[in-house]
Amino acid sequence: MEIKYKMWLEKDGEVIAGNGKVSLLKMIDELGSIQKAAEKYGMSYRHAWGIIQKMEKRSGIKLVETQVGGKEGGGAQVTSPGKRLLNQYDAFRKGLDQSVASKFKGAFKK
Amino acid sequence: MEIKYKMWLEKDGEVIAGNGKVSLLKMIDELGSIQKAAEKYGMSYRHAWGIIQKMEKRSGIKLVETQVGGKEGGGAQVTSPGKRLLNQYDAFRKGLDQSVASKFKGAFKK
Repeated sequence: MEIKYKMWLEKDGEVIAGNGKVSLLKMIDELGSIQKAAEKYGMSYRHAWGIIQKMEKRSGIKLVETQVGGKEGGGAQVTSPGKRLLNQYDAFRKGLDQSVASKFKGAFKK
Repeated sequence: MEIKYKMWLEKDGEVIAGNGKVSLLKMIDELGSIQKAAEKYGMSYRHAWGIIQKMEKRSGIKLVETQVGGKEGGGAQVTSPGKRLLNQYDAFRKGLDQSVASKFKGAFKK
């Protein structure tokens, strides 16, 4: 037997972010572009942007800043509160993975 | 923001039990009857019994023993390996709840 789990963040009963949404934000951070990040997940720009806007609205945190036009044809940057959220989520998830594994061993492998 | 999570047990990629299935098993244990436990959850006897049989098949553990007829018109008892699973799941879930709460505080309330 093994244990599986899913976690997500909520505010006022609304989902802010689970692994999927956080992955999208991380990809935008890595690629500097909503369009490119959307392509990685096989979704449209509009859909990806909608996800980010919902996360922003629900969390009350501005997560992504976009630049229109310019030499590189626009781009997107994860804000520093956005990066902070990514780091917090990562740290939390990793700590929890370890905790789940060790607690599971303690409870079920007797 | 608050953290939510869902956990479940799997074996060979098949779900053995999550909170819902475990609650049903616990109710059978409390009421000594699959019929009465099923009623509590608004499900048919057949459906409840199907859930238990799937859990048994997937876990390889006999969880419930039924008695047919007799003075009390039959009944069901959770076996001792079944009770052990209930206790382990409970202990695990409680420990994890605490761990999630404290880790969340540590990661996100900075």
